[in-house]
Amino acid sequence: LSGDYESLDYDVCENDLYQLEERKKSVKEIMIIEMLRWLVMFFVGLLTGLVASLIDFCVIQSTDLKFSIIKKYVDKCVDNKCMEVPLLVWVGINGGLVIVASILTACFEPVAAGSGIPQIKCYLNGVKVPHVVRLKTIVVKVIGVIFSVAGGLIIGKEGPMIHSGAVIAAGISQGRSDTFRKFDLRIFEFFRSDTEKRDFVAGGAAAGVSAAFGAPVGGVLFSLEEGASFWNQALAWRIFFASMVSTFTLNVIQSYIKGIPWDLSYPGLFNFGSFDTTSYSAFEIPIFILMGVLGGLFGALFNQLNYILTKFRRRYINKSRDRVLEAMIVAIITATVGYISLYFNNSCSPMVQDTKDNTVQVYCNDGQYSSTATILFQSPEDSVKSLFHESKGMYSPSTLVVYCLCVFILACWTYGLYVPSGLFIPGLLVGAAWGRFVGLCLNYIFPDVGWVDFGKYSLIGAAAQLGGIVRMTISLTVIIMEATGNITFGLPIMIVLIVAKWVGDIFNEGIYDMHIHIQGVPILGWEPSSVLTNLSAKEVMSHPVSVFNMRESVGRVMEVLKTETHNGFPVVEDYIPNPLDSSINEEMSFGTYRGLILRSQLIVLLKQRVFGDNGDQFYNLSTKDFRDAYPKFTPIRQIHVSQYERDNCEINLEPYMNPAAYCVTDNALFPRIFKLFRALGLRHLVVVDKHHQVVGMVTRKDLARYK
Amino acid sequence: LSGDYESLDYDVCENDLYQLEERKKSVKEIMIIEMLRWLVMFFVGLLTGLVASLIDFCVIQSTDLKFSIIKKYVDKCVDNKCMEVPLLVWVGINGGLVIVASILTACFEPVAAGSGIPQIKCYLNGVKVPHVVRLKTIVVKVIGVIFSVAGGLIIGKEGPMIHSGAVIAAGISQGRSDTFRKFDLRIFEFFRSDTEKRDFVAGGAAAGVSAAFGAPVGGVLFSLEEGASFWNQALAWRIFFASMVSTFTLNVIQSYIKGIPWDLSYPGLFNFGSFDTTSYSAFEIPIFILMGVLGGLFGALFNQLNYILTKFRRRYINKSRDRVLEAMIVAIITATVGYISLYFNNSCSPMVQDTKDNTVQVYCNDGQYSSTATILFQSPEDSVKSLFHESKGMYSPSTLVVYCLCVFILACWTYGLYVPSGLFIPGLLVGAAWGRFVGLCLNYIFPDVGWVDFGKYSLIGAAAQLGGIVRMTISLTVIIMEATGNITFGLPIMIVLIVAKWVGDIFNEGIYDMHIHIQGVPILGWEPSSVLTNLSAKEVMSHPVSVFNMRESVGRVMEVLKTETHNGFPVVEDYIPNPLDSSINEEMSFGTYRGLILRSQLIVLLKQRVFGDNGDQFYNLSTKDFRDAYPKFTPIRQIHVSQYERDNCEINLEPYMNPAAYCVTDNALFPRIFKLFRALGLRHLVVVDKHHQVVGMVTRKDLARYK
Ligand SMILES: Nc1ncnc2c1ncn2[C@@H]1O[C@H](COP(=O)(O)OP(=O)(O)OP(=O)(O)O)[C@@H](O)[C@H]1O
Ligand SMILES: Nc1ncnc2c1ncn2[C@@H]1O[C@H](COP(=O)(O)OP(=O)(O)OP(=O)(O)O)[C@@H](O)[C@H]1O
Ligand SMILES: [Mg+2]
Ligand SMILES: [Mg+2]
Repeated sequence: LSGDYESLDYDVCENDLYQLEERKKSVKEIMIIEMLRWLVMFFVGLLTGLVASLIDFCVIQSTDLKFSIIKKYVDKCVDNKCMEVPLLVWVGINGGLVIVASILTACFEPVAAGSGIPQIKCYLNGVKVPHVVRLKTIVVKVIGVIFSVAGGLIIGKEGPMIHSGAVIAAGISQGRSDTFRKFDLRIFEFFRSDTEKRDFVAGGAAAGVSAAFGAPVGGVLFSLEEGASFWNQALAWRIFFASMVSTFTLNVIQSYIKGIPWDLSYPGLFNFGSFDTTSYSAFEIPIFILMGVLGGLFGALFNQLNYILTKFRRRYINKSRDRVLEAMIVAIITATVGYISLYFNNSCSPMVQDTKDNTVQVYCNDGQYSSTATILFQSPEDSVKSLFHESKGMYSPSTLVVYCLCVFILACWTYGLYVPSGLFIPGLLVGAAWGRFVGLCLNYIFPDVGWVDFGKYSLIGAAAQLGGIVRMTISLTVIIMEATGNITFGLPIMIVLIVAKWVGDIFNEGIYDMHIHIQGVPILGWEPSSVLTNLSAKEVMSHPVSVFNMRESVGRVMEVLKTETHNGFPVVEDYIPNPLDSSINEEMSFGTYRGLILRSQLIVLLKQRVFGDNGDQFYNLSTKDFRDAYPKFTPIRQIHVSQYERDNCEINLEPYMNPAAYCVTDNALFPRIFKLFRALGLRHLVVVDKHHQVVGMVTRKDLARYK
Repeated sequence: LSGDYESLDYDVCENDLYQLEERKKSVKEIMIIEMLRWLVMFFVGLLTGLVASLIDFCVIQSTDLKFSIIKKYVDKCVDNKCMEVPLLVWVGINGGLVIVASILTACFEPVAAGSGIPQIKCYLNGVKVPHVVRLKTIVVKVIGVIFSVAGGLIIGKEGPMIHSGAVIAAGISQGRSDTFRKFDLRIFEFFRSDTEKRDFVAGGAAAGVSAAFGAPVGGVLFSLEEGASFWNQALAWRIFFASMVSTFTLNVIQSYIKGIPWDLSYPGLFNFGSFDTTSYSAFEIPIFILMGVLGGLFGALFNQLNYILTKFRRRYINKSRDRVLEAMIVAIITATVGYISLYFNNSCSPMVQDTKDNTVQVYCNDGQYSSTATILFQSPEDSVKSLFHESKGMYSPSTLVVYCLCVFILACWTYGLYVPSGLFIPGLLVGAAWGRFVGLCLNYIFPDVGWVDFGKYSLIGAAAQLGGIVRMTISLTVIIMEATGNITFGLPIMIVLIVAKWVGDIFNEGIYDMHIHIQGVPILGWEPSSVLTNLSAKEVMSHPVSVFNMRESVGRVMEVLKTETHNGFPVVEDYIPNPLDSSINEEMSFGTYRGLILRSQLIVLLKQRVFGDNGDQFYNLSTKDFRDAYPKFTPIRQIHVSQYERDNCEINLEPYMNPAAYCVTDNALFPRIFKLFRALGLRHLVVVDKHHQVVGMVTRKDLARYK
């Protein structure tokens, strides 16, 4: 486990200040806060919808421009035998766009790389990934994703949208920015705590999903599946509201862009198009199951390759320069591979009425078009859609196989580059290609039956492949259902996702979890591993515990804060600090447990100089002082306390500590501790013995160690 | 709060026996149990689908038969001026059917009355409602609902289906029945605990929703919204599986009934029909909001009237005879009101091509039909659908108003009768009627615009009215979305449901919660009331606590179990029982906390005679012995222990008690305790002081007292 990550804390510190504040709060104030929560969620939805529209608009415009330029060169050069020119143009444009994205990401904000879903998962799980919800991150992410998608990489813009939603939520709810230190709205001050912030981030992520796929329910489920340890009805409802607002905003903007103002039928940026006319029969279910198995296998392969690559990258590609270079190389290869496959797999199909748009002729005779070129001269999203919906003759089997292979390899290589990049579309693309191929095979075996619909198999393949890669369950099912716009395919999609997950889980874990674990994030799964049921708190806890007395000398507080990295300390009675460590043994205990105090609280106390000699204290602190310091507390080294004060002054921790912080006895078993952490969102858990003596400390990291 | 209800217990008793069992469990066994969970969920889905199909089939057949008979008489008598004959026939048939339903319910299993949703809510919340998941209950429920729906009451069969799903799940997972004591499958023994059973019941309820409305996602959300305190991904996924299987089963059966085998397009019993061609525009949103307000108002009125009625019923209609009588009266009045409105509101409409089926002529001229008769000569479900989908001229404004009024009053009167009856359809029906009326008004105001679609307003009205009555949030939105089969109307439905809930909540609570509270069930809401944040454990807990020593004399155990009704007792050290009560005061404590033992465990210990004189014990008990006794433990009065044993024998509680049972210190605040109960599904929480001395006890009832 890496030491870079700190936990979020969802436990309320029920000290005297808090009780005072609560007592003073009127019903009206409570109502206002509740209204503000809805208001914030409204703006989260609104802004997420706007940002998503912006991304979409820019991507579409630049992609169109790019392909129109390239097509022009292709058309010109097919006759003039100068086919290297369009290649160079293509490579040049793509390389140029991708280099911008990768320089931005690698040099300015590396955390903006990739889809952002693993980071959001961690955040919702309760781990603070540094910089993940910063203003700078979203700026880099938005600009980066536009450039990298336009740059022709095999990526989607959906993951980054989810991340953007989360950042927007964090930003709005705090009403200030870490990047611009001066900017502070000074409203929403009440929301300056981990608990509130995470709730909003959950809403933002859901709004992002909702905008990306037009899947508000899927968004809510995504947030809940990844994050909410305790399903809170009111929260779920607010998250749903944010999702709906975001879909709605996007819808309105899209309707304007499409020229039919206020026509609300474009709920998401990427919907799978209508599958209304297709249906399935019960005897196809075995086929779906087999496709699920395939999806699981391919998904596991994808993850395994990406795992090796990621390990390699972490070891050898560490400098920004190398990272930019790698992104460039991938961009160039992606363009080149596409271009070369035009030569070697130039399968021509006759032009029929309903395939006329979007087709590219290249080397084919008049009246024919090149199916390879057609699929290549599109953004990945449009390719998915055309795999779902184009009529029978559009793609030849060989095109599909070659295309599927190339995309598989390139997508696998691309994920993990230092550019913002989503994984949903590549996953769907690979799956749609082999799914359609399965459809073609079935059509070959049963030539005259009506039920072989290529779109259907393409869809199932896409679901299977994506499920095999990301291993999400219920939320992915609902997202795909909502993206297809009807619920007919609910059962088959669910079946392939179950099967793909089961098969994939035999080999390795989902790609997001894989990346999370490679980075050593102390994330907690859903349930404790079932082989650990006999581990007790005694074995899990850290033993020598740094504790403070109820009245502690300033010197010792400074000392401990400087020498230890811990963020939470039990407050005890009758503890004699023993710096010689002579008596520290297994059985030692550390005084009677009274409460828990956080490093952040101690720092505020020191900074505000809430200490005195001979016991007099300054009690003018309120919870507001602690909230104002959130989330960045001054490091202990920047706090100066004179030697006199160190020696002679005492802090009285009693009014500030959390007197009711949860504790367990040392015979509690692992699953119980795990459940406490998971369900209540704990950061620190004090272990006491039968006599209420502190004997150990458990944090998230102690639990995450056990897999 | 009523004393009839006991809590469910989700805390694992981590005693030595449990640890031993866990240690012996191989990975293979763990896998098998996991597979069994899926298997059980499969059967739950399958059976729920079958039962739902059975109910549906019987209802449709009997309703069709009934109306064909009545129509025959009407047609005959219109000319012969003998209109009292069809009235008598109608009243006779309806009365006859309803009396069967109400006798079954009132005399055999009163808990089968109503929709069952409040009871399932309680169960999922953690309260055992006696008899609610019995075999007898489901038999009465299924037969009863068929008769009462066929008997023409304004009720739906959907609520009872949800209840049936829950009972099926409880039954299958336990592999035995309380009604037939002999029957015991002896598989699934591992699932004999509150935790496992509740998880399956959640699956069953979801499967029920899924079968009723073709809403698998809505079903999952329903279960989670009502029940799961801690969202567990694996569980959610299994629940979803059960829902899908149930939809699928139903779908296959329906496809056979409809004569198109294996055509999978009938996902639910009651779907709202296709709204594919309708859309909405952003400027209609204010109209939707107003309709939401209306829905909230009408819903609150409905609930208030029903509240008064229920209070009245509880006081004056207690005997089975009276209950049957009341059901009869309502059945007769319902039939009569329908019939009379034929006379007084005989609005005739010209017969046009697309209204030909289902129309009834009665007094109208040839080529015309009576719209009142048409809406009356249908089951309530078909009426909802025809309000949604019939073309413009079908219902005149006056018909709608009269119909809406009658249905409102009758539905309100009917809910709470001693017959199985669902509330969804009546709610939708009332709303659909006034929603269509709103559509007509809008059409009158804006005669020439395209966007006034009666079906759309009917749907929105239905959602608003139902939302105003039941006040469910996200799950209801999704259920309605899924029942309409597309997601276009997601946002408007959500808006009206939010508004309806907000408006309704000003006046009273949702009807299910109302009934739950009238019955005094100690149910816990989602969040502690925000005005109680300063209440501490000291004020919440029960003070003199009945505790046991680690080694306790058999006599005292018998004594305490007989005199106290409590189900859980702290186990302590150094407690001197003081029967004289002279020293009991506010500050008294009861020994050092060591663990918690349940009444059920003590009873097993006594029954198995795990005690001895001078300390020798029989240690041959295993967790299996405790599981076998689940869920019905012998009452203490039936356990016989000789006077010698009482005086001389001791039980050693240490190996059986739960040594790690949660406890809190007495300064913990109310919200913290509430969250512990809610998130971890606790039944007992021991309160200790600073020195780990037991000072109090908190159970669900202590929390539920505060509203
Ligand atoms: N006060 C303490 N005394 C002794 N050990 C501690 C203390 N607090 C934490 N630990 C132990 O130190 C290790 C690393 O602690 P960790 O960084 O997780 O704690 P933290 O910084 O307080 O919390 P987090 O990093 O999750 O915000 C863990 O094994 C933990 O048990
Ligand atoms: N061992 C005990 N000693 C003293 N009071 C208790 C004890 N157990 C419960 N109580 C109190 O008795 C009241 C009623 O208890 P309740 O019936 O809820 O407990 P229970 O029967 O143990 O649990 P449940 O009925 O929820 O299964 C509550 O106020 C509770 O605090
Ligand atoms: Mg740390
Ligand atoms: Mg009780």
